[in-house]
Amino acid sequence: MISEMKAAVLHAARDIRIEQLHRPDLLPGMVTLRNRRVGICGSDLHYFEEGQCAAFVPDRPFVLGHEFTADVVALGDGVDTVKIGDRLTVNPARNCGFCEFCKAGRVNLCRKTIMLGSASTTPPTNGALAEFVSVRADQCHALPNQIDDSLGAMIEPFAVALHAVKRAGLVSGRSVLVMGAGTIGQLVAITARAFGAVPVAISDIVSYRREKAVALGADLSLDPSQADLPAQVRNLTGDGFDLVFEASGSPRALRASFDLVRPGGTIVQIGTLGTADIPLPANLLMNREINFVGSMRYGNVFNEAIRLVAAGRVNLQPLVSEVFALDQSVKAFEHAADKSQAFKVQIEL
Amino acid sequence: MISEMKAAVLHAARDIRIEQLHRPDLLPGMVTLRNRRVGICGSDLHYFEEGQCAAFVPDRPFVLGHEFTADVVALGDGVDTVKIGDRLTVNPARNCGFCEFCKAGRVNLCRKTIMLGSASTTPPTNGALAEFVSVRADQCHALPNQIDDSLGAMIEPFAVALHAVKRAGLVSGRSVLVMGAGTIGQLVAITARAFGAVPVAISDIVSYRREKAVALGADLSLDPSQADLPAQVRNLTGDGFDLVFEASGSPRALRASFDLVRPGGTIVQIGTLGTADIPLPANLLMNREINFVGSMRYGNVFNEAIRLVAAGRVNLQPLVSEVFALDQSVKAFEHAADKSQAFKVQIEL
Amino acid sequence: MISEMKAAVLHAARDIRIEQLHRPDLLPGMVTLRNRRVGICGSDLHYFEEGQCAAFVPDRPFVLGHEFTADVVALGDGVDTVKIGDRLTVNPARNCGFCEFCKAGRVNLCRKTIMLGSASTTPPTNGALAEFVSVRADQCHALPNQIDDSLGAMIEPFAVALHAVKRAGLVSGRSVLVMGAGTIGQLVAITARAFGAVPVAISDIVSYRREKAVALGADLSLDPSQADLPAQVRNLTGDGFDLVFEASGSPRALRASFDLVRPGGTIVQIGTLGTADIPLPANLLMNREINFVGSMRYGNVFNEAIRLVAAGRVNLQPLVSEVFALDQSVKAFEHAADKSQAFKVQIEL
Amino acid sequence: MISEMKAAVLHAARDIRIEQLHRPDLLPGMVTLRNRRVGICGSDLHYFEEGQCAAFVPDRPFVLGHEFTADVVALGDGVDTVKIGDRLTVNPARNCGFCEFCKAGRVNLCRKTIMLGSASTTPPTNGALAEFVSVRADQCHALPNQIDDSLGAMIEPFAVALHAVKRAGLVSGRSVLVMGAGTIGQLVAITARAFGAVPVAISDIVSYRREKAVALGADLSLDPSQADLPAQVRNLTGDGFDLVFEASGSPRALRASFDLVRPGGTIVQIGTLGTADIPLPANLLMNREINFVGSMRYGNVFNEAIRLVAAGRVNLQPLVSEVFALDQSVKAFEHAADKSQAFKVQIEL
Repeated sequence: MISEMKAAVLHAARDIRIEQLHRPDLLPGMVTLRNRRVGICGSDLHYFEEGQCAAFVPDRPFVLGHEFTADVVALGDGVDTVKIGDRLTVNPARNCGFCEFCKAGRVNLCRKTIMLGSASTTPPTNGALAEFVSVRADQCHALPNQIDDSLGAMIEPFAVALHAVKRAGLVSGRSVLVMGAGTIGQLVAITARAFGAVPVAISDIVSYRREKAVALGADLSLDPSQADLPAQVRNLTGDGFDLVFEASGSPRALRASFDLVRPGGTIVQIGTLGTADIPLPANLLMNREINFVGSMRYGNVFNEAIRLVAAGRVNLQPLVSEVFALDQSVKAFEHAADKSQAFKVQIEL
Repeated sequence: MISEMKAAVLHAARDIRIEQLHRPDLLPGMVTLRNRRVGICGSDLHYFEEGQCAAFVPDRPFVLGHEFTADVVALGDGVDTVKIGDRLTVNPARNCGFCEFCKAGRVNLCRKTIMLGSASTTPPTNGALAEFVSVRADQCHALPNQIDDSLGAMIEPFAVALHAVKRAGLVSGRSVLVMGAGTIGQLVAITARAFGAVPVAISDIVSYRREKAVALGADLSLDPSQADLPAQVRNLTGDGFDLVFEASGSPRALRASFDLVRPGGTIVQIGTLGTADIPLPANLLMNREINFVGSMRYGNVFNEAIRLVAAGRVNLQPLVSEVFALDQSVKAFEHAADKSQAFKVQIEL
Repeated sequence: MISEMKAAVLHAARDIRIEQLHRPDLLPGMVTLRNRRVGICGSDLHYFEEGQCAAFVPDRPFVLGHEFTADVVALGDGVDTVKIGDRLTVNPARNCGFCEFCKAGRVNLCRKTIMLGSASTTPPTNGALAEFVSVRADQCHALPNQIDDSLGAMIEPFAVALHAVKRAGLVSGRSVLVMGAGTIGQLVAITARAFGAVPVAISDIVSYRREKAVALGADLSLDPSQADLPAQVRNLTGDGFDLVFEASGSPRALRASFDLVRPGGTIVQIGTLGTADIPLPANLLMNREINFVGSMRYGNVFNEAIRLVAAGRVNLQPLVSEVFALDQSVKAFEHAADKSQAFKVQIEL
Repeated sequence: MISEMKAAVLHAARDIRIEQLHRPDLLPGMVTLRNRRVGICGSDLHYFEEGQCAAFVPDRPFVLGHEFTADVVALGDGVDTVKIGDRLTVNPARNCGFCEFCKAGRVNLCRKTIMLGSASTTPPTNGALAEFVSVRADQCHALPNQIDDSLGAMIEPFAVALHAVKRAGLVSGRSVLVMGAGTIGQLVAITARAFGAVPVAISDIVSYRREKAVALGADLSLDPSQADLPAQVRNLTGDGFDLVFEASGSPRALRASFDLVRPGGTIVQIGTLGTADIPLPANLLMNREINFVGSMRYGNVFNEAIRLVAAGRVNLQPLVSEVFALDQSVKAFEHAADKSQAFKVQIEL
């Protein structure tokens, strides 16, 4: 049995080193995976650029990466739901299964969640930017042949969008505005369209991103820097959009959402905001019975995500912009950090 | 002002006569329409073939037709939401607006509903198979240019499917089986697919209809006459379909639905059943927490239906099989009654 | 037929005069009522104290009052749902019945609503602080004998609380905190308790109000001026309250709600806030998937409110603090404005 | 450590023997409990009277009992959520925690559930009619002092009622009819009332049970043997009951429910029905958009149930009719089987 493995280890901001680590343990109920393809997420970039992600500060070096495709290479005791050789993707959030949140089906609110490639716990938990990783068997979701390694590593970010859309309730037949056309915003727009939203509009200050969104199926794009946006929206929609997804993380975009949403409509917050309070029109929220709701990671939507991709209901391939080798991890992160060009950067192992 | 009009009047089973009638009155709040295109519905066929539709027996001759495109030719007092010359389609169900059902948004349960082209009230209410018809202004839904007269007359049956899908709750990402591939079943399958259901399966005993459904986007079709259907479904889906739409009106199909639906899943009844009780496995419904719900006509979904068709989210054109002139109404009805070939037969005025 | 009537007319801030006005018209579909008992609402007090209510500025003198019990004295053409002599209360918000909001059952979002005793339209609409008022027949809700005139005039404020509780979704079995123990806060606490919420806590800076709430059935009261409120709440509830109703209109209370609500929980805004934006922790809302929703007036809950009061499920009598004659209207308003003592002040006609 | 224990072992229909058994194993994550008080459930009675419960046939002798209060006497490895000496009640259904149903919060649909005191698995799983039983730590729910042993053993049947009421959606302010006034019917009526339903009606052919229901707070009782029941109900309610809970297990009662429920209303099936299909009016269900849904055991409602009992929102004590010693188990079961007199019979250890 191999006992060592190569890994990309984050030591500090902009300091990722390719090193040899111990292969992860294999406890009962767990499986060990050989990783094939790993995507770089916005939170990975925060760790890379700032050495931390919001309030999560690692107390020692650790391995990033939680969007990935892998093969099963070893089974812990009692595992019967996957088998050696299965190619699969992983839900990187391991919930406890038994608390009140878990039993209510709100697994993403479980306080005991252990997240791969994250410093949300201390010590941090190693992720997938290494040859091997161990996960609990129920975190594994088998991939059909229609989904290649690259798409397999897109299931996790797609799950973020899928969950956000679920938080909005019914989207079919409703008018949708997505604020922010980064990877998550693009995925939300793609999902909303695949679920029958009409029209699907997207706004971003970068024209390249707006064009990308329209190329991927959005009905129209809006430039939020234009002064008369609320008037434009009223022309388009009458009373405003039924649903607004705030995926930019911009306080200004969030504030604007309240003027663009229809009475009785819903604003879903997905974009990561800083910790400072944001001035918001609570009186409008009351008078117009607006719903303002948060969306955090995802619930158990991975099988659904896989079915939607495999059946061609959504096409995620155009969002993968470049692929690098593990040894080029630093270069990959630097490329991913250049928001003017990149959508999803991946690393092949 | 013209005071007479040509109309296709139903006198008895298989007895439709082209006659001159008085042009309909124009009361305050109402508008008079000149009809352009009218579809023949399953309930129209019941009146044509049996002289009545289930328990609705007309006490005098009347005019059928409630799926249609028309132009506004006159406005009653106080109408300001439509104008002369507007081309539009009509919600043929005029609810009262003020009862408990209406105020709760369940307009299709309003006991005072007046239905165009129907003997649900006595005397019956004349429908659209005539040069003119009068409706309340809020029943009118303007058509954009992308929707021609033929598609405009498809909005009403599409509304039936749309409402049924809404009765199922969330369909996106869920597995759906439609029992019965007639016009309504086809529309439900098209709608479910446009709303992100995956996979969408359809079953019918007629192979021509199954093939049509697959051509229109269903992922797979099933032959309900095969003995091992439940086993087939378990192979496909694991625990059964999340959602089953019973659109065939067959008691056997309804009974089978309970074996094909997943625990916790939902069966929606849309197909018109006879008045006899049907033996159903209430113990299965209890043990598996199945939801069995009815879908009746439609709520206020016409604007949504128009947006979905205009934006190309659904393509209803392939379901229009033939068009006849008003003078050929009997021939049109006879053709429509031949279920082996026809989907939607329309009459042009 | 009497053609004049006595009315309490608001001319300007703190300027209410008892005058003779024309008796209101009786159009088709309307009924004329002789008013018996009228409550003074918080919005009435805004008009009285400031001459306007938030953005609603009357362009001429008008009559306040929209919480009342009355007798039917005349029927307009076509009215068959009430009869002369009926004693009833009134939903003062006349929605249009036919717009998209109305047809969706969200009658309180109807943009064409005409509100009794309000300057939300121009000219303002006269209310019930007069001998007579005319309303549309469907605004009338008959009172059973168990509900006397005083309680009949409490149905409207109870409807506000009832609607707010509905906006929270399921309250039964959930932990509830009401911020603000004024009349509406008290009514929300009473309603939550009657609907099975447990525990029901209420917070207010005034000890008299906290004690009243506990006397009326709240399980516990909290003093928001205590520094360690979040810690107290965590001791009580573990992860926070499932539901928080912000009924104080205080920006500080609203901000505090985000620290007191459980992950996945809901904050309902009912208290009238100023028009200034309020700094709120949108990142907490996202990370904890908090729902923040507005509650505006009420939907069609009057019959339900009457059933609940008549059956003794809620006891609203202890909230009526004083009754004055119409001629003493100014005194009544002054008394009502003294928030340290009064809950609901009513005027008898 | 004691290695043996006394237990009431079911060998066959009407053959329960007091025997010595091995004390149950204590695996990691589990706790061993010393049982204090055990209630006899309808399913226990099926095993006692018929040697089986519906399709569940034990392949060897086993111990019944799944409604109980107990003390913690030993902790398995890794348990930190309960401690020795805790007095608690138990959710007897041990779900797997990781399947699609569990992760969706529908824990009662988990196919891998292991049920205490049941032959739903082979071999059957021993229950609580013994000195000791072992359960997984998360099945334990601590009891506050306000809940004595007798009430603690009522939490499980109350959970059945609570779950059924949740399956109906919102009950507050709605009219409710409970068919069948046995223990579960009584508990549903009590719960509906505590959650604000109005009126709460109950029907049973046995006058003693009807009277009991009214004594416990139902607003009215109905005798289903009266021919004009639908007419009576229409007099009472107008359009029928918003919600009907079928808790009698009688096919006739279920069929009648469809004539007694309001258009748009919901029928919840809780009463155990035989396996034969039951003729039901599916056309009525469709035309009136009735929802017919099953309720199976309970989800994770035990903490909520405990809070409601401890706070006095519901009073379950009057439903406990007699208490026997373990040695008198046969007598206790015989007494419980006499439906004319008994509600809940308990056994003290």
